[in-house]
Amino acid sequence: MRISKLFTKTTKSVPADEVSKNAQLLIQAGFIYKEMAGVYAYLPLGKKVLDNITQVVREEMNAVGGNEISLTALQRKDLWETSGRWSDEVMDVWFKTDLASGGQVGLAPTHEEPLTQLMKGFISSYKDLPVYPYQFQIKFRNELRAKSGLMRGREFWMKDLYSFSRDRAEHEKFYDEMAEAYMRVYARLGLGDLTYKTFASGGSFSKYSHEFQTVSPVGEDKIYISKAKNIAINEEVYTDEVLADLGLSREEMIEETAVEVGNIFTLGTKFSDALDLSYTAEDGSVQKVFMGSYGIGPSRLMGIIAEHFSDDKGLVWPENIAPGKVYLVQIGGDESRKIADELYDELQSKDISVIFDDRDARPGAKFADAELMGIPYRVTVSDRLIENNSYEFTDRKTGQTELLTHDELLAKLD
Amino acid sequence: MRISKLFTKTTKSVPADEVSKNAQLLIQAGFIYKEMAGVYAYLPLGKKVLDNITQVVREEMNAVGGNEISLTALQRKDLWETSGRWSDEVMDVWFKTDLASGGQVGLAPTHEEPLTQLMKGFISSYKDLPVYPYQFQIKFRNELRAKSGLMRGREFWMKDLYSFSRDRAEHEKFYDEMAEAYMRVYARLGLGDLTYKTFASGGSFSKYSHEFQTVSPVGEDKIYISKAKNIAINEEVYTDEVLADLGLSREEMIEETAVEVGNIFTLGTKFSDALDLSYTAEDGSVQKVFMGSYGIGPSRLMGIIAEHFSDDKGLVWPENIAPGKVYLVQIGGDESRKIADELYDELQSKDISVIFDDRDARPGAKFADAELMGIPYRVTVSDRLIENNSYEFTDRKTGQTELLTHDELLAKLD
Repeated sequence: MRISKLFTKTTKSVPADEVSKNAQLLIQAGFIYKEMAGVYAYLPLGKKVLDNITQVVREEMNAVGGNEISLTALQRKDLWETSGRWSDEVMDVWFKTDLASGGQVGLAPTHEEPLTQLMKGFISSYKDLPVYPYQFQIKFRNELRAKSGLMRGREFWMKDLYSFSRDRAEHEKFYDEMAEAYMRVYARLGLGDLTYKTFASGGSFSKYSHEFQTVSPVGEDKIYISKAKNIAINEEVYTDEVLADLGLSREEMIEETAVEVGNIFTLGTKFSDALDLSYTAEDGSVQKVFMGSYGIGPSRLMGIIAEHFSDDKGLVWPENIAPGKVYLVQIGGDESRKIADELYDELQSKDISVIFDDRDARPGAKFADAELMGIPYRVTVSDRLIENNSYEFTDRKTGQTELLTHDELLAKLD
Repeated sequence: MRISKLFTKTTKSVPADEVSKNAQLLIQAGFIYKEMAGVYAYLPLGKKVLDNITQVVREEMNAVGGNEISLTALQRKDLWETSGRWSDEVMDVWFKTDLASGGQVGLAPTHEEPLTQLMKGFISSYKDLPVYPYQFQIKFRNELRAKSGLMRGREFWMKDLYSFSRDRAEHEKFYDEMAEAYMRVYARLGLGDLTYKTFASGGSFSKYSHEFQTVSPVGEDKIYISKAKNIAINEEVYTDEVLADLGLSREEMIEETAVEVGNIFTLGTKFSDALDLSYTAEDGSVQKVFMGSYGIGPSRLMGIIAEHFSDDKGLVWPENIAPGKVYLVQIGGDESRKIADELYDELQSKDISVIFDDRDARPGAKFADAELMGIPYRVTVSDRLIENNSYEFTDRKTGQTELLTHDELLAKLD
């Protein structure tokens, strides 16, 4: 992508109406745009990052047998009344609106009810189970406050998978596989070392649910971590009884603030009871389907990654989700322009994604933008460098600069 | 994809609450699910078709210089009041809802206002123009009636691109390029021969807008076509004056019903006036940006393609948007299962997408599903065929069947 063809611009001024670092940096770098509190548009570079995160999550969901679908934003009142969750007393984040043809509909904050209803058309026998539909969807939550940038949205991008199993045993096997799949997602996004499977309060069908919490000073949750066992406990269930249950002692636990970056939950037959999702078992008996839900928000992940991987110069994207691998800076006259053009074409032909700063701008401005946007590697082509047959290669994370020959550069980037 | 891992099922019974053929067929084949009138979920195979159509549109938008972004569903009342389109009298398809923190927001039926406002942060000089941001987004329209399946949704999947140009001349050049890009989209989707660039009513800034109309008996529009000139006129502007203006005579025009599958519109300075989107021209004067809008609905396209490419046995997808290229049917015992498994792996390794009917089901049921789902090529592996070292290859469109050797089969599919 050529910067001259990109309509966004960076800005040095910190947006006055944002208190969160992720929103400040992402807006300054031209990745997102604030429509209103908790509601952000994704600009070209931000869209690429969000797509890259989404693709990592998609691959891991497919790897455990997920079937990708796309449910609807508009929700039937009757379904949610049946489950008892239409009331604003029970679910306090509803947006509701009226149909021109009469009646009220809601904007989906989650999708247990419509998917359970949908599956009634496809599940009747034990042979139809287990199944794991999932989707990426805009979710809506009518939050009273939304000051955390991408980390708490009124409208946000969510992956939700639901498991439909024959019984608890089949469910638990998958639940554990999903916990591992989630940890693979965080590892691939560079958050592996900071993210803990965290015991949280369960429901009628399980003692615990599990959150995935990334340690961060901007977190809204307090967790207690056992580094030795690589697990954590949410403050809400941090009791002597739970510690004993998990074979942990207070002495080994470290208190941290953290951001919830995913959660998995044993729903049991809560929704299959309410909406009557049954199947005929191998022995001929009629059973309720045993369910689980599994959420990850790619937009929130983008927020926490922006918070965590940044420094005083701007963003520092991990290579696999950066909007480009290389930021190519061209400085000087016709000869350097020609060499830079050739390098741009060559890297693209090798499927190395390049953001080419082909603008007529000061070198300092180009370097500053490369840093603010957080592109992993900066390559500079200038008249002086050409004289020495070399390219300047700078690592965004370490700041280290080397002079490389053409072949050395390509070997580095391949 | 193995059918045994796919949770959807086909059904012979026509959904009683659907009058449109596209919704009936797509529901019967397990591609979509009706949440409520005009609101459909996409199941795994339907999601693939929608993604494939989306990708065709994306490639053509990128080819004309589009920058992909993603705007928000929730809309600021104040912006739409500024342009005069918040009122239900002016825009009668609004869904509106209340923020928990106070104030009303709308669900976007289109995005001129928020994008014009957004671009104020990025356009100040003639050097910033032209630019062509676009997005795929769920759009919401509070339709009184929605009986046409995917062809008229209350919630639907839309591509909208907006052009921001220096002046009318620059705008018109791009407008014509977009008309060609749209025709390339329809050609790639197999609708080229049926789709006409159609003159429709313009606005304050242009004599005409242009629709793209696909001839179909289920269309809601009436158009008049000149086959010789390969253009059409919408009934609403079908007058002697317009005919004369376009150098056409009534004699050469054929009346048809048609479905609008896209539209392009010269917005002029309507929104840049209302929201004050200006730039400094090369001569130092301050000018309003000249805008255009360009819409295509991939979900509606999926509906019209399902209507058009179907027969009494079911859907007949064009190869490039089908959810799979091959429907592999396995019949018989262990030997045929082994051969079918090997073929499945081999085709996948060659990036040929296969839906593998590995179920323990009657051959007739498998053949019927292959036809209902509309997969372009059916390949059958059976014990009898193996004895003759052959594979049965059936073309969904023509119904023609051939017996092929392994090498002939691969040559056909490559």
